[in-house]
Amino acid sequence: MSVAKQILDLNRFDAGKASSMPPVLAERVQRRQATFGAASVLFYEQPIEMARGEGAYLYDTNGTRYLDVYNNVPSVGHCHPRVVAAIAAQAATLNTNTRYLVRIVETYAERLLATFPAPLCNLVMTCTGSEANDVALRIAENVTGARGFIVTKSAYHGNTSAVEHISPSSFKSQNTAPHVRTVPAPDPRDAPDADIGMQFAAQIQAAIDDLRTHGHGFAGFFADSIFSSDGIFADPPGFLQQAAALIRKEGGLFVADEVQPGFGRTGAGMWGFARHGIIPDIVTMGKPMGNGFPMGGVVTSPDHLAAFTRKTSYFNTFGGNPVAAAAGLAVLDVIADENLIANAAQAGGVLKDGLLALKSTFGQIGDVRGAGLFIGLDFNNQTTGAPDPAMASYVINAMKQHGILIGAAGLYGHTLKIRPPLCFNTSNAAFFVETLRTILSGAN
Amino acid sequence: MSVAKQILDLNRFDAGKASSMPPVLAERVQRRQATFGAASVLFYEQPIEMARGEGAYLYDTNGTRYLDVYNNVPSVGHCHPRVVAAIAAQAATLNTNTRYLVRIVETYAERLLATFPAPLCNLVMTCTGSEANDVALRIAENVTGARGFIVTKSAYHGNTSAVEHISPSSFKSQNTAPHVRTVPAPDPRDAPDADIGMQFAAQIQAAIDDLRTHGHGFAGFFADSIFSSDGIFADPPGFLQQAAALIRKEGGLFVADEVQPGFGRTGAGMWGFARHGIIPDIVTMGKPMGNGFPMGGVVTSPDHLAAFTRKTSYFNTFGGNPVAAAAGLAVLDVIADENLIANAAQAGGVLKDGLLALKSTFGQIGDVRGAGLFIGLDFNNQTTGAPDPAMASYVINAMKQHGILIGAAGLYGHTLKIRPPLCFNTSNAAFFVETLRTILSGAN
Repeated sequence: MSVAKQILDLNRFDAGKASSMPPVLAERVQRRQATFGAASVLFYEQPIEMARGEGAYLYDTNGTRYLDVYNNVPSVGHCHPRVVAAIAAQAATLNTNTRYLVRIVETYAERLLATFPAPLCNLVMTCTGSEANDVALRIAENVTGARGFIVTKSAYHGNTSAVEHISPSSFKSQNTAPHVRTVPAPDPRDAPDADIGMQFAAQIQAAIDDLRTHGHGFAGFFADSIFSSDGIFADPPGFLQQAAALIRKEGGLFVADEVQPGFGRTGAGMWGFARHGIIPDIVTMGKPMGNGFPMGGVVTSPDHLAAFTRKTSYFNTFGGNPVAAAAGLAVLDVIADENLIANAAQAGGVLKDGLLALKSTFGQIGDVRGAGLFIGLDFNNQTTGAPDPAMASYVINAMKQHGILIGAAGLYGHTLKIRPPLCFNTSNAAFFVETLRTILSGAN
Repeated sequence: MSVAKQILDLNRFDAGKASSMPPVLAERVQRRQATFGAASVLFYEQPIEMARGEGAYLYDTNGTRYLDVYNNVPSVGHCHPRVVAAIAAQAATLNTNTRYLVRIVETYAERLLATFPAPLCNLVMTCTGSEANDVALRIAENVTGARGFIVTKSAYHGNTSAVEHISPSSFKSQNTAPHVRTVPAPDPRDAPDADIGMQFAAQIQAAIDDLRTHGHGFAGFFADSIFSSDGIFADPPGFLQQAAALIRKEGGLFVADEVQPGFGRTGAGMWGFARHGIIPDIVTMGKPMGNGFPMGGVVTSPDHLAAFTRKTSYFNTFGGNPVAAAAGLAVLDVIADENLIANAAQAGGVLKDGLLALKSTFGQIGDVRGAGLFIGLDFNNQTTGAPDPAMASYVINAMKQHGILIGAAGLYGHTLKIRPPLCFNTSNAAFFVETLRTILSGAN
């Protein structure tokens, strides 16, 4: 089990410690465990039974309100009325598959594709980000005729059999599949005197060479440009350019997994890759695309897509259904009409400044970094500087007591993953910073 | 390209033949082709632009009504008001992931699991049937430590990289993956003097032996118990018992893919496997589960599920969200309250009898078979008896002119796949039979 898994499991409910739960909660947990069995994954030592959501808040069945600083699926806000209305109206009118023409489906495809640079002008609609990355794998294999892929050490790209191989953060053992190589995430602190972009590209070059030596060839590189599960690495913008140029030169495909940074989260435009000034070969999307309606997508060039469909007869029954299109269209409208990208920049800026100020007070905070409304905050041992996942775990549970939902990330699980819905405002940011101050003051 | 693919492509829109389309339709098709590119799959020489759906009917943008005898996703009827209301209400209240407790999720899991026999009492919720079969593959691999799988010759189990390998009907070449063996679908006509169940088991035994000889071992057998994409083989009930016993004896897992026969379609209870008197090791579900809301599921025993989660940290972000649970619960309620299983038996019986009567009049009809509201009708050359996919294609397009949507299936594409929503009534059945009579009379 990787270190990251160990710490993520610290925030996972453990039935062995459940004796002190209130009877009603214990009964709910028992029902979940009885039905979901070994695959049940509940957060917190005492799980929360949720009742409703609104904007940046979730409410449990006791009426307790939680500021949501964890969930990026309800990206434009929990139960956003425009998205809900769009889903309800379309579900009542027509819900069918893409073997028929349906105007809202073409409209959505055009609206979404208009946010991408050339030559990214074809869309495959799926139901999840996992399905999108599963298609991207096959596009890259078919275009290159190779099987070797490169990802970062603690990457997560999804849950299908094939995508699991390129998702080391899911591994319960350290065994990487033979056709996959990992490289360290581009952490600027690892290259204080060098150019992090050059160093990252050099590591990718070594991985490409090793894949070739072992006969796998080089099909492509997958990256979430904010390196979410690696611990959030966003700066300096542009550090992916050398890697992108190298990958193209070596004949592989650059797959930008926008499940995390996409749809405005970084506060610097719609897409994380654009913040780095690169144009990927394939873009994949998921979580925030439908604000909770299950949908994902792959955007690529016509030639790359044709290479895929020459070999496989791909059809996704639910993918691109008109209800998904309606949800997706409402999400695009809300992002624009409520200036959520600008809000991500502004509220994210206030949040980051506040956390940086805390860092100067509290020695437990090793680093604060990120872009827009995606910030990582490391806890490190004040004496040794070692990652302190126990502190992250303590803060996550203390935050719950203060009415805030948050989680951890990174190779060592010592990084608070600060990733609220994009409607999170400056007051929410101030509340979060002050709550963290209170918790850290008490922890001293 | 397989014969089945060739004929299915006959009902696929081909831009090369599109010159005679009305300008408005041509513009719509152009928009779809421009955005969906090489992955665009539209039905019919002149695609249909749909506007709304209700019960067993779809309506195009010109107001033309089509009786839907193709789509099994809207299983309880297009835009069923109870399902729509459940989706709308839950989407407006709470839509989050299963790391929190949500009462409707536990309720749905219990209601669904109550329809299964022991020891099938754990549920993994996914977003698609493909994701469900992708999980089932890994459960079987982890339980058995083997990699070899067996499916029928023209099986379809989904579209992920891994599931594509066990979906020969998707192949654009005849190359089966090294770890997969195919067996002929259990067509009683192939064993007139023998027991089809024994013959089918013998073919599986040979495939198991061959997998072992080649070092793959035997992980499991996947079957849709109505053999939908193979051409619909339902009778006699029980013909899967010898295969199931053999598979258990050989240490492999029997995976019942209920995407097609499940949720009452055969008119003989909720599940296709139960009609054959067997208890599978894993059951997978998809299409009709949420009446169009993207959801799928895997049901298995606690031990099997635990074997899977020991190796992989599986989490499905959208899987088991409360909106899916609400949709799924409404589907179960409607099936019960509207007696849809009894209706499938009754309307399906009227339909089959009517088609059998046509068979005695029209020599082009080679066979009529099926269960409940899933019927296959073969067209064969009257002189040679050879499969006649061109006739199936002619009938599919003629049916469209008569306001009926239908498709083809089977290894040779000569089988009409008659698979309407379960609210299809005896009047609909009579209309379908009379329309086919009219078309075949004109074709003589």
